[in-house]
Amino acid sequence: MNIHAKRIKDLQYVLRQNRLDALVIGRTLEIGFLTGFHLDGCTMLVTRSAAWVFMPKMLLEHFRSRVAFVNAVAPEGTPEAAALARIKELKLKRAAFEPEAETYKRGTAWRKAGLLEKDGLTGALRAVKEGAEVEALRKSCRIAARAFGIVKPRIKTGRTELSVYRELEDTMQAMGAKGNSFSLIVGFGPNSAMPHHETSERKLKNNEAVLLDYGCVYDNYCSDITRTYFHGKPSDEFKKVYSIVAAAQKAGLAAVKAGVKARSVDAACRNHISDAGYGQYFIHGTGHGIGLEIHEFPRLNTTFDAVLRPGMAVTVEPGIYLHGKFGVRIEDSVLVTRTGCDILTRTA
Amino acid sequence: MNIHAKRIKDLQYVLRQNRLDALVIGRTLEIGFLTGFHLDGCTMLVTRSAAWVFMPKMLLEHFRSRVAFVNAVAPEGTPEAAALARIKELKLKRAAFEPEAETYKRGTAWRKAGLLEKDGLTGALRAVKEGAEVEALRKSCRIAARAFGIVKPRIKTGRTELSVYRELEDTMQAMGAKGNSFSLIVGFGPNSAMPHHETSERKLKNNEAVLLDYGCVYDNYCSDITRTYFHGKPSDEFKKVYSIVAAAQKAGLAAVKAGVKARSVDAACRNHISDAGYGQYFIHGTGHGIGLEIHEFPRLNTTFDAVLRPGMAVTVEPGIYLHGKFGVRIEDSVLVTRTGCDILTRTA
Repeated sequence: MNIHAKRIKDLQYVLRQNRLDALVIGRTLEIGFLTGFHLDGCTMLVTRSAAWVFMPKMLLEHFRSRVAFVNAVAPEGTPEAAALARIKELKLKRAAFEPEAETYKRGTAWRKAGLLEKDGLTGALRAVKEGAEVEALRKSCRIAARAFGIVKPRIKTGRTELSVYRELEDTMQAMGAKGNSFSLIVGFGPNSAMPHHETSERKLKNNEAVLLDYGCVYDNYCSDITRTYFHGKPSDEFKKVYSIVAAAQKAGLAAVKAGVKARSVDAACRNHISDAGYGQYFIHGTGHGIGLEIHEFPRLNTTFDAVLRPGMAVTVEPGIYLHGKFGVRIEDSVLVTRTGCDILTRTA
Repeated sequence: MNIHAKRIKDLQYVLRQNRLDALVIGRTLEIGFLTGFHLDGCTMLVTRSAAWVFMPKMLLEHFRSRVAFVNAVAPEGTPEAAALARIKELKLKRAAFEPEAETYKRGTAWRKAGLLEKDGLTGALRAVKEGAEVEALRKSCRIAARAFGIVKPRIKTGRTELSVYRELEDTMQAMGAKGNSFSLIVGFGPNSAMPHHETSERKLKNNEAVLLDYGCVYDNYCSDITRTYFHGKPSDEFKKVYSIVAAAQKAGLAAVKAGVKARSVDAACRNHISDAGYGQYFIHGTGHGIGLEIHEFPRLNTTFDAVLRPGMAVTVEPGIYLHGKFGVRIEDSVLVTRTGCDILTRTA
């Protein structure tokens, strides 16, 4: 069975488990996950036994040429209205929508039409990667990891952050990437101390930190990797901070395993950094899920209680940021396994 | 005054006009428009006399280094909760949020906290471009227009759609673009007949249509252009359809002027195509606003009543799509003026 057809079957199983008759979906991301069709303006309706996508007329032939296992309809009115009409026509009492995946406008209209609110239905399916999506993610991460080895030797004194941004991008595209998975961060010197620095025209000087936080999209799947190193002769302070972050990241990776709570991975990194006396300089969570989105379920932070399951893909990325001086962050993307994790962003 | 500080003043004027005490903003796009700071996870609160941005701790130094005219706060709890607490503390009775710019989750929380729903406050400011944003948009469109002249001669028999996609992208970046303004469409032969074709590995054959729909982001502003031509010796049918679309687009451009309704531009294009007997093959609206987003206010379609104002930026892009054969779309981005329009995507 086609992977998307299988996902719709899985969702129908989840509907029965939750005693729901149907789910209506307005966001392109979830419709893309269920059908492989990633264009805006559609509304999907999945019942326990069937599935429809309502869409503007201009998408109909395109959709039909790509998706054979779902009913495609181009209604006279809006796709949203057509989905509601179908729910009424089929007399579905327990139809739901996912608040997390909806705009306020659309969600409000659906609540007014009597639909139930139920989060996490498609999210549960998306969190655990399987089959072709594992391969896409693996390839996406491998491309990102290889780009570091190619680009690093070419980062010389005088180069601008933006020129390195473009070289990373070009290098990943030459290996088959479709684009960047987010706005890549290239930070030289003090700019490395801002976790979300905006890549600029600043030039690299001798003896300063270089931080590269980047990733690509391959077959719709997002990779995420961060590497930090010193251009020139590292100061004792840099060496010390780097070794603390590296050990913290190692502890975090060692904590990843099916069955553990997301927050225990954060604790493994955070405790190490705090014990070394730099707790106040680790100013963000340890990681996040990756997949069709660069940030998705689960979050690895101090409060997230969700349990890691085999097939989840997450980042582990502790950091220490010394304002005005430098920052160090080390990040890998990993796949959770029963016994630990498979690091996707390391080259052999 | 800094352009962003001026926009906040403009918004405060709009608040007074609407007898509102404050506006709370959760979406990054609007916060970026008002502050120049485009990172996720912030909540902004604008009252008649002051403005705050609440944000995660890790963004604080970064924000402060870039934005001096807004109060920056990293609260203990969530940015959303901090904004609500400030509204309460200041005893603001008529605080609002914009439903169109909110997620269902956030919007619902704000409605429950007693905030009013009011659309179009920031949208009205964003629709009319001024000062530096006109220049950014002009540059963005000029880069896109020039890329066609550079890339077209290199599109030879046997090249894949994706290789042309990458060459358009590289060419625009070499001229200073930061990225693509959307997922570029390169369609050869029958693929040109799908308005939202997904660029593929298909190779160009002799004697078929080439459709390029693309644009870039320059200084956060999005350009949009479509060019269609025939690779080889055009059939009579292609020549006929092309000349109808070209005349329809010319009629649409001639209809653009401050004071006219958005739908009258659509009617100008649509009537021409219908009169030529191809009405059923023009399966989308005539255009849309462009700016920080590739699709924004206003829409140029059969139903949109909004009146065009000087400084609005819109696309005019009629098309005819003959399924299985070819499609023709011609699109330019224009700036609305008092007497007509300024075509931004034509090279001198």
